[in-house]
Amino acid sequence: MRRAVALAARGLGRTSPNPVVGCVLADASGAVVGEGWHQRAGGPHAEVHALRDAGPAARGATAYVTLEPCNHTGRTGPCAQALIDAGVSRVVYAVSDPSAQAGGGAATLRAAGIDVRGGLLEAEAAAGNAAWLTAVRLGRPHVTWKYAATLDGRSAAADGTSRWITSPESRADVHRLRAESDAVLVGAGTLRADDPHLAARGIDGATQPLRIAVDPRATAQAGARILDGSAPTLLVVADDADTRHLPPGTDLLRLTPKDGRIPVPDLLAALYDRGVRSLLLEGGPTLAGAFLEAGAVDRVIGYLAPALLGAGPAALAGAGITNIADAVRLDITEAVRTGTDLRITAVPTAPKEH
Amino acid sequence: MRRAVALAARGLGRTSPNPVVGCVLADASGAVVGEGWHQRAGGPHAEVHALRDAGPAARGATAYVTLEPCNHTGRTGPCAQALIDAGVSRVVYAVSDPSAQAGGGAATLRAAGIDVRGGLLEAEAAAGNAAWLTAVRLGRPHVTWKYAATLDGRSAAADGTSRWITSPESRADVHRLRAESDAVLVGAGTLRADDPHLAARGIDGATQPLRIAVDPRATAQAGARILDGSAPTLLVVADDADTRHLPPGTDLLRLTPKDGRIPVPDLLAALYDRGVRSLLLEGGPTLAGAFLEAGAVDRVIGYLAPALLGAGPAALAGAGITNIADAVRLDITEAVRTGTDLRITAVPTAPKEH
Repeated sequence: MRRAVALAARGLGRTSPNPVVGCVLADASGAVVGEGWHQRAGGPHAEVHALRDAGPAARGATAYVTLEPCNHTGRTGPCAQALIDAGVSRVVYAVSDPSAQAGGGAATLRAAGIDVRGGLLEAEAAAGNAAWLTAVRLGRPHVTWKYAATLDGRSAAADGTSRWITSPESRADVHRLRAESDAVLVGAGTLRADDPHLAARGIDGATQPLRIAVDPRATAQAGARILDGSAPTLLVVADDADTRHLPPGTDLLRLTPKDGRIPVPDLLAALYDRGVRSLLLEGGPTLAGAFLEAGAVDRVIGYLAPALLGAGPAALAGAGITNIADAVRLDITEAVRTGTDLRITAVPTAPKEH
Repeated sequence: MRRAVALAARGLGRTSPNPVVGCVLADASGAVVGEGWHQRAGGPHAEVHALRDAGPAARGATAYVTLEPCNHTGRTGPCAQALIDAGVSRVVYAVSDPSAQAGGGAATLRAAGIDVRGGLLEAEAAAGNAAWLTAVRLGRPHVTWKYAATLDGRSAAADGTSRWITSPESRADVHRLRAESDAVLVGAGTLRADDPHLAARGIDGATQPLRIAVDPRATAQAGARILDGSAPTLLVVADDADTRHLPPGTDLLRLTPKDGRIPVPDLLAALYDRGVRSLLLEGGPTLAGAFLEAGAVDRVIGYLAPALLGAGPAALAGAGITNIADAVRLDITEAVRTGTDLRITAVPTAPKEH
């Protein structure tokens, strides 16, 4: 199963809206006779790849799969049936499939007389699919809020300058995060102030994330770097926004603002419908505050630069918290050096459904 | 020498205004015949302890000392002469003594025909005496700025509440820092807002640091916890401040303010004159900003709590920096967990004379 988890990870960033899945077929002596992983959405599932790899050796074999084999016919056939047809005698999976659509594979396999066991290395396999599992269970994309700040929490100096707070290694790491995400999101303020490009650069074979700007009044200029065509882009605007100045063919998502802002739940529901399962929230402080206030941040990744400013905009603003008792409490899951900086990964402590 | 460095560390927090020093005497075969360390200011130096421990076995031995043996007669005699009198044949030391008063011991030893070598494990030994060495070289106390903040750099919530941002382990760690420091300093704002006690609690055999409040207008109340008599306290007030409301016997340091504030260099010079070699700066943000602006922060220790607030006072303010190019750049020397928090230690990158 450890091998299957490793194989699954090869699909990271390419399978959305599907999960990453790895599969290993072993014969009665434990020798590996076939391997596969889900390589891209629309392509064969991991089990199918592994069965093809094994050929006739699949008969009587044990299949180790990181996710419960699917039970539905989408662009590809149900994997449970494929395993039955190939004569596999035993199926061991790590994580149950929580989706109403594809779940139930284990029951189908058992009904066909196959020995089925779930839960092996569940935590490891679930970690590889954290974003997808959260998304499917909550019905909205998994959200990672990424920020960069000095040790005193400033994301820029008092005069607005911020190049470069963090090290080249940290900036390269952000491109890796982008490549692993389905979509990258910024607010209108960041769009105006930084004219960000938001593509994943310097990552071999990267699948470009969907670049999203939440821009209710459609203030984006036609020449904005985010509209350069090098990666897909989506502008989220108010339903009545005037967008005639934008290049023809600009992909627009029109939503109804409340008090001038697009409600975070509405935004996330619309993105989920478009197949976005993992979202990287890059800025600015007010947008991050709105996501936090909506309880819609599942992971925080902070790049802390060993610098002090003593003035300048904070990395986070307006989350609606006034008393220390209401602070959003997190658990630090990792703290590593990225160049001269420190990268801190944390997740909310409050019990959440994932 | 490694043993001598370890012995030296036993004196940490108790020897000021002297450095910590360890000494090991070894015979010709390398066997240890005597050990000692400087235990407290006014008591015998490390060499004297080791010579007493060795007795007649000191004759012909090699002395490993973490600091160049002193050459002057203070409350105790010069160690260089004691080593000569005991018939030691070789002296190996780690760090040269930079003080004009006590330096020159190596020359005295050589003149007496003793084989003298310096620089062995110099970096390790210097690290143990970092505060003292900085203080003697700069003629002001070594300053550690300690702060506690959320991941987004807030030291309190918007309504001023801050108990508890950090974990019990972090708070206990601060008491250790206090016990290792000669003095702990806060500003008048922190005094009013938090009524801090500032003593080192929960540390066995801790030498209490001098508690200092910079309070130009002498706003401290007679019942302030800092004036409870459980540890020495010094109030730094303007030369014309009215202090008649303070308890009789309150130790006052009167300095001349500029623009209503006590200049940091004047303050540090006065504290150095009083024997303070290591100073722990505990707050608040404006005082820390003034120290940073004066280039008088030698080490930063931040306790970062895995929490987000999005509003509330910043950990640092008013350091006079407006452009990112002028940010105070640091090197992170350590990042470790203290309970659920992350403790980051950093020192200024700018080449400094230590």
